[in-house]
Amino acid sequence: MANVDLGLRKWTVNSQREINYDIILTEEVLNPYNEMLLAGGRKNGSRRFVVVDRFIYNMYRDELETYFEKNEIHSKIVPFDSGEKNKSLENYIQVFKELDKFPIDRRGEPIIAIGGGVVTDVIGFIASSYRRGIPHIKVPTTLMGYVDASVGIKVGVNFNGNKNRMGSFEPPKAVILDKGFLKSLPHRHILNGVGEIIKLAVIKDINLFEYLEHNGPECIEAKFQNSAGDSILDASISGMLEELEPNLYEDNLERSVDFGHTFSLALEMHNVDNMLHGEAVAIDVAFSTVLANVHSLLSLEEQNRILILIKKLQLPHCHKSLIPNLLWECLIERTHHRDGLQRVPLPDSIGNCVFVNDITYDEILQTCTIMERLFKV
Amino acid sequence: MANVDLGLRKWTVNSQREINYDIILTEEVLNPYNEMLLAGGRKNGSRRFVVVDRFIYNMYRDELETYFEKNEIHSKIVPFDSGEKNKSLENYIQVFKELDKFPIDRRGEPIIAIGGGVVTDVIGFIASSYRRGIPHIKVPTTLMGYVDASVGIKVGVNFNGNKNRMGSFEPPKAVILDKGFLKSLPHRHILNGVGEIIKLAVIKDINLFEYLEHNGPECIEAKFQNSAGDSILDASISGMLEELEPNLYEDNLERSVDFGHTFSLALEMHNVDNMLHGEAVAIDVAFSTVLANVHSLLSLEEQNRILILIKKLQLPHCHKSLIPNLLWECLIERTHHRDGLQRVPLPDSIGNCVFVNDITYDEILQTCTIMERLFKV
Ligand SMILES: NC(=O)c1ccc[n+]([C@@H]2O[C@H](COP(=O)([O-])OP(=O)(O)OC[C@H]3O[C@@H](n4cnc5c(N)ncnc54)[C@H](O)[C@@H]3O)[C@@H](O)[C@H]2O)c1
Ligand SMILES: NC(=O)c1ccc[n+]([C@@H]2O[C@H](COP(=O)([O-])OP(=O)(O)OC[C@H]3O[C@@H](n4cnc5c(N)ncnc54)[C@H](O)[C@@H]3O)[C@@H](O)[C@H]2O)c1
Repeated sequence: MANVDLGLRKWTVNSQREINYDIILTEEVLNPYNEMLLAGGRKNGSRRFVVVDRFIYNMYRDELETYFEKNEIHSKIVPFDSGEKNKSLENYIQVFKELDKFPIDRRGEPIIAIGGGVVTDVIGFIASSYRRGIPHIKVPTTLMGYVDASVGIKVGVNFNGNKNRMGSFEPPKAVILDKGFLKSLPHRHILNGVGEIIKLAVIKDINLFEYLEHNGPECIEAKFQNSAGDSILDASISGMLEELEPNLYEDNLERSVDFGHTFSLALEMHNVDNMLHGEAVAIDVAFSTVLANVHSLLSLEEQNRILILIKKLQLPHCHKSLIPNLLWECLIERTHHRDGLQRVPLPDSIGNCVFVNDITYDEILQTCTIMERLFKV
Repeated sequence: MANVDLGLRKWTVNSQREINYDIILTEEVLNPYNEMLLAGGRKNGSRRFVVVDRFIYNMYRDELETYFEKNEIHSKIVPFDSGEKNKSLENYIQVFKELDKFPIDRRGEPIIAIGGGVVTDVIGFIASSYRRGIPHIKVPTTLMGYVDASVGIKVGVNFNGNKNRMGSFEPPKAVILDKGFLKSLPHRHILNGVGEIIKLAVIKDINLFEYLEHNGPECIEAKFQNSAGDSILDASISGMLEELEPNLYEDNLERSVDFGHTFSLALEMHNVDNMLHGEAVAIDVAFSTVLANVHSLLSLEEQNRILILIKKLQLPHCHKSLIPNLLWECLIERTHHRDGLQRVPLPDSIGNCVFVNDITYDEILQTCTIMERLFKV
């Protein structure tokens, strides 16, 4: 019971919220006999509001409709145009209204998001704010979604020219992983996801790093449909969850998974060449790797080993927009976001990271010069 | 660590979020020597974004500015026009943008909401969604805010013609109660808050009910500035917290504090006579009391005792818009909200409630007829 403290004349409210969800590997998620998609909700005769990436919708429309029909679920399937520019308040409102027209019960009929990070982020935010929260299921269809966007609880939309400025933390009811979707994913979007994988390898997993050195190119070629692909996906998700789980709400602002996410924002929000999130992350990883050497944390040898892997995987690694002023602004913005300290994760060896609060403008300048020399942009 | 279950091929994420906040009684909250308003944040040299009900802003503008100046806080004070129609997505967006123009650090500079339930609901929703959550402080200035809207964690805005359709659960950093604000509150808004107090008395606190029978009118007259007023306010907040604390996120959909909140929505959203929330609640309390008798739960004697108190306190108790079809629709809507069951709390004696799932259209009809006869509307 709320504690009444008569001396200080106050009540104290004390409570705990349980977070509990599964991330489930499956195959043929749209096979009507696979019940995964209906996880955590009522079955026969119930309703589902399903938001699907437009590409996936065009490709699997019949399967989707059949799936719900066969399972005797009354469904409303809404296609969603993805891409960063569609991760907007306007689209949030539009889908919110469609959901409101299609009533669902508040607990037993999870909404389902099938798509890349844009769909799962926007629909997760709707789930967090519709009637103060309804359950949702995420089914990632991009590599970025598979290893990153779908497995955590961060949801939201871009706003006022700022990435993810409006959003919240909303645990899903379940995440259903079917890597079969990746078969149709364009090469560029495969690499986009690899940007997050290499980030994780550099900052916390030397084994994954070595595995990427040996099997990375082949897995990229096979769109991760091979068994080495499974190993990389499993290691990535496990590593990601190891970092996320003890700090789901980011009470601790020192997050190693923020590696590659400090300077990347400059590139993304200025929307240079329509750069993708994972591309900007890969460039940030390269930049931060050199910065770690400039900051006397990382040996030149290890720096080079990281840069060589980035090149070998054909990830973007440098960009003409890496100009000192812009990067410095970005660091200031991140400092606000990280409550007044830089808290930039940097590797001190491959597979390990430390947090740095004293990066100077001069070091940024110096790093830019080295990057230019290294990559001759 | 996330559990990898290789047999079922899944990971399980398991975590707990701690909720912890104080509801603090104070006096002279705007006295610069009273530091309550700065609770839970950095002091000297820091920043505060403060949203203030327009009436309070006009009345206390100088005090507010002096308060932050004297405490060497760089503040941005934004007036907000309250009233139900202003609890809108548009106003949420507008204030959100103003906050975004005035950067604050993400953790150490709580935003402050000073006003009635509209201000604290809208600003609480901004706090929950700005950068995925920033701390906020609530200072209620209406009786409705004091005993109800500010003490819990429900926040949000009206949307698509539906009350609180968009919102979330967001624990405040602290709630600061200064009943001095109530001195300027119009009689109608005092009664508005009494609507929630009587709800609580009927459904769970016979002592409070008797206390209201004896001291209610005098306290209303004194705008709760008398010591009997303290007793009622304390009992109301304690009772409210007893119900809220074990069920902050409404995992249990059987909430006794939903008494008076089943049929009230019909009156509010059709905006009859600009009816206030607590007025609609009072009418619902009267209606539900008669319904409890019709449903063979409550004795006629106790029914009448409740109706007499409602009249004695001069609360609204009946309304021509209480028409069976509308009320039935409302019950269906609430049934969706309560995940498929009616779960209507009804008193089976004064101070105790049970949950009912089998209210029929006929009973609604019968209750309407009795209400008409009793109150000759
Ligand atoms: N919530 C988080 O924790 C988190 C983590 C990382 C990234 N993100 C967010 O994720 C977003 C990026 O995600 P994304 O890269 O998946 O973008 P996206 O959702 O826009 O998808 C990229 C493109 O791939 C298409 N597509 C999707 N699935 C496909 C498939 N199977 N075959 C062919 N094409 C397909 C889409 O139509 C789209 O054009 C960013 O907004 C980023 O901020 C969120
Ligand atoms: N979050 C919750 O758990 C919860 C609980 C109950 C009610 N509510 C919400 O609260 C809202 C109603 O709250 P409300 O009745 O405070 O409405 P309100 O915030 O609109 O305030 C009512 C009026 O009183 C004026 N006012 C405020 N303080 C004053 C003062 N000290 N002196 C004179 N005038 C003053 C305001 O300017 C406004 O005109 C509804 O939207 C309701 O849904 C929320």
